[in-house]
Amino acid sequence: MKTRDRILHTSLALFNEFGEPNVTTLQIADEMDISPGNLYYHFKNKTEILVELFSWFEQQMNDLLDIDDFSASVEDQWLFLHLVFENIAQYRFLYQDMVNLFGRHEKIGLRFKRILEKKRKATILICKTLEAQGVLTATDKEIFALAENIVLTATYWISYAKVMHGSQGDSELNQGVFQVMSLVAPYLRAEEREQLQVMGEAYL
Amino acid sequence: MKTRDRILHTSLALFNEFGEPNVTTLQIADEMDISPGNLYYHFKNKTEILVELFSWFEQQMNDLLDIDDFSASVEDQWLFLHLVFENIAQYRFLYQDMVNLFGRHEKIGLRFKRILEKKRKATILICKTLEAQGVLTATDKEIFALAENIVLTATYWISYAKVMHGSQGDSELNQGVFQVMSLVAPYLRAEEREQLQVMGEAYL
Repeated sequence: MKTRDRILHTSLALFNEFGEPNVTTLQIADEMDISPGNLYYHFKNKTEILVELFSWFEQQMNDLLDIDDFSASVEDQWLFLHLVFENIAQYRFLYQDMVNLFGRHEKIGLRFKRILEKKRKATILICKTLEAQGVLTATDKEIFALAENIVLTATYWISYAKVMHGSQGDSELNQGVFQVMSLVAPYLRAEEREQLQVMGEAYL
Repeated sequence: MKTRDRILHTSLALFNEFGEPNVTTLQIADEMDISPGNLYYHFKNKTEILVELFSWFEQQMNDLLDIDDFSASVEDQWLFLHLVFENIAQYRFLYQDMVNLFGRHEKIGLRFKRILEKKRKATILICKTLEAQGVLTATDKEIFALAENIVLTATYWISYAKVMHGSQGDSELNQGVFQVMSLVAPYLRAEEREQLQVMGEAYL
């Protein structure tokens, strides 16, 4: 792996473990056993590393959210949500202590907000399609409130699980998927609702 | 007001505005126009101020959550939630960047976790009572998942609204109450569900 990529991967791991504000470029260089000068040759400062990592995150999340065709099956929605949660977990430092992070990096904050907006729109689109197919019954107003709650829950689940359950493992991701699906459950047709219950028991 | 109380109130205002990690004891003294020595006479360091403010928060929230008798009406639940959200808003710095804050102050983190646990139990109790009264229809499993989602939404609503809508006003609190109530809505009897819709339109 090239030094530039190694710097990015090492930074991501350290940011996720200790929180971005608690990691310095010196620690990153130290962890990689390279000189600070070598690091500065590739990145002038920590912000440049952060911006590059954010672009990785943004690209992956946008690829996930560019939905034009999707299946209405409960299994497929579960899988889709699992991929979203995996992306969140991979860049969990962005979701921790957002007010601090985006207070210091406003442009990144605006780009993050656009991602949340996109998630909200994708969620509304999915719900409306399920509604048209008779799988889900809800008014437009209910769908709007539901979509906001879904995005909020997906955004903060990992932080919440860390504070509440002290966990960081894979079971926490499945639990997150289940919590989001349980927001949708009461609006689903009996058949899909039962299916969801069975899947929840299989994964948790 | 005594100097000690003024220090606490000033600290709370500054923590809420700038985030606890970004406020120093020197800034607190400066804002109050007192000498650092005067501040240190009352509090040895910022942690002592934080611990005292946390005790205020904890006392108020515990008073709210010590529910033994409650009304099942939608208006009363709305009011109760509004009081919870007001407490959260009053100590919003605790809810911002929790991973950082509780990473540095583990004991406070444990006490905060106990508050969340208490909220979850109070929510389950309310839902089960509504269920027994025929106002709400849900299985025990559904109530457990619902309670977790309610606590998560209440905990993170203000941070989410700040990132997503850039707002900090009172409308955001009403919106938070509405979002939490909308989690419960699909489980409610038609009568209460309609009532909630009407209240939502009146407050938002």
